[in-house]
Amino acid sequence: MQSKKTNIPFSLTSESLVSDLSEEQLISLLVEGWRKSKREVIASIAEDCAVIQAEKKELYYLFKMDATVENVHFDPSSPPEWIGRKALARALSDIASMGGEPLYALVGLGVNRTEKVERIKQLYKGLTDLARAIGMDLIGGETTKSNQLFIVVTVWGKTDGYKPILRSGAEDGDSLFVTGVLGGSYDSGHHLLFIPRIQEGQWLAKGQWAKAMMDLSDGLATDLPRMAKASNIGFEIDYEAIPVRKNYGLHNALTDGEDYELLFSVAKEKEIDLIKNWPFEVPIKKIGTFSKNGKMEFQDGYRGFDHFQKSRGDY
Amino acid sequence: MQSKKTNIPFSLTSESLVSDLSEEQLISLLVEGWRKSKREVIASIAEDCAVIQAEKKELYYLFKMDATVENVHFDPSSPPEWIGRKALARALSDIASMGGEPLYALVGLGVNRTEKVERIKQLYKGLTDLARAIGMDLIGGETTKSNQLFIVVTVWGKTDGYKPILRSGAEDGDSLFVTGVLGGSYDSGHHLLFIPRIQEGQWLAKGQWAKAMMDLSDGLATDLPRMAKASNIGFEIDYEAIPVRKNYGLHNALTDGEDYELLFSVAKEKEIDLIKNWPFEVPIKKIGTFSKNGKMEFQDGYRGFDHFQKSRGDY
Repeated sequence: MQSKKTNIPFSLTSESLVSDLSEEQLISLLVEGWRKSKREVIASIAEDCAVIQAEKKELYYLFKMDATVENVHFDPSSPPEWIGRKALARALSDIASMGGEPLYALVGLGVNRTEKVERIKQLYKGLTDLARAIGMDLIGGETTKSNQLFIVVTVWGKTDGYKPILRSGAEDGDSLFVTGVLGGSYDSGHHLLFIPRIQEGQWLAKGQWAKAMMDLSDGLATDLPRMAKASNIGFEIDYEAIPVRKNYGLHNALTDGEDYELLFSVAKEKEIDLIKNWPFEVPIKKIGTFSKNGKMEFQDGYRGFDHFQKSRGDY
Repeated sequence: MQSKKTNIPFSLTSESLVSDLSEEQLISLLVEGWRKSKREVIASIAEDCAVIQAEKKELYYLFKMDATVENVHFDPSSPPEWIGRKALARALSDIASMGGEPLYALVGLGVNRTEKVERIKQLYKGLTDLARAIGMDLIGGETTKSNQLFIVVTVWGKTDGYKPILRSGAEDGDSLFVTGVLGGSYDSGHHLLFIPRIQEGQWLAKGQWAKAMMDLSDGLATDLPRMAKASNIGFEIDYEAIPVRKNYGLHNALTDGEDYELLFSVAKEKEIDLIKNWPFEVPIKKIGTFSKNGKMEFQDGYRGFDHFQKSRGDY
């Protein structure tokens, strides 16, 4: 049933609840009135980041907002430094997925009056330490009370001298690659301590290796069809090639979400050179091919994580 | 008691709660590790917006994030279109307070699964209508579930050909002006329907009228001392000159908050020309003078709104 929600038309009444829709359906309703009025807006909601073309040639600005909410994106028992770290790292993963360089961030906090100051200090320490390690500046933010802890981060990044990689560049015959291993992110703790693939993304963009790229946040079974649709090309998956986290299975790799790995397409003729020249510790793996004969969905009803459907903490 | 919390040192223990601190104290703790590493960062957390100097001469980018939370910034019974409108207008008021032109915004939403879709659609309609009326583009965002409705907006603006006006430019002898009327914002509904002073702010900045400027969000009694401290100059207030909203009193004008009017300093010798040339419908009023003989605080213990101290809906 869930797998159909994204694909079939839905009828909306004045009594419809958020839980009656998939996240994509909800978003499509909310942005109905949005219009592009400025020609320098290269990409907006359909991509991992919004992209603004600057006046200077080959300079592009990237923007991404991410919200990290208690009992949704982390358990209350998680170490607070790791929570803060994750709040920034999630947005950085999107900057990475376009090959961008992160520059600045704004940090918003919603916090209960009865929260311990020490916990929030630690949370900010984790976020601040990651920002400094990466060489970006935290330049502003917002604090408000709320009854549920949340952190919202907006990151501003850029690509300077090269184009950001969109989801829409994959073509017939391209090889499909993924970094790292997939599945079990939430249960294994990877979702708190993952390393955003910033250097890898920049290398893939600057060297014109990747033609299409995105980060895996909702699971391969949800995210790959998004890339296929953006590129208007089908795909054929080699299920046995999918790199699965130890102690987890193929189903986890397809549907768990929060992998924060890069998914990218490479021209077939560059495939061998890519593997030979790949300079990073994290492995890359070819998991399939874009093909006009392939489908744009997983045939077997696999679907990834949807915040409004699947519940970790139900409200 | 409350008025002292901002000024006296506080002792923090591992058991301290957020409610033991003022919002300013909390923020000062959270940003302890923040460092400026990039020279193009002109202003950050101490100002209404973060300011980044672009490569082009006299081009500055402004960034502001604001969070709008149910039962904190609006009542559940408020018309949803007005809630969405406010969520964007709050951040626009900060862009206005530097004389900036708003360009783009990202919109983040936290929403309960049991929320009616129609209410959220209306909320986005109010926000979208305001964005279109102002000529800015909504270019991205985030949706997540949460048990309390919140909207986080990040606005990107600019000043092109002139400098943004900071809080720190007031000098001895400057006249202190305010737009509109103050007080009673929340109870009167002004907090939902206020018009961000974007044109007025740009006029004051481009014409080099304002030397220091900010928007009044926490009440004159909290915000004016912030400007005084940023400029390192005292002030003398003419209490009888303060423009008070009809049916409200001086105490409301000083402490209620959410006025979203401009507070700005003007060189004494420009005062008459300013009044003569002011081209807008909203009135301006001189309410005092910056003076090295003045104090940087209100003497009588007046303090404005503090989210973590005063409660509209207690949690």
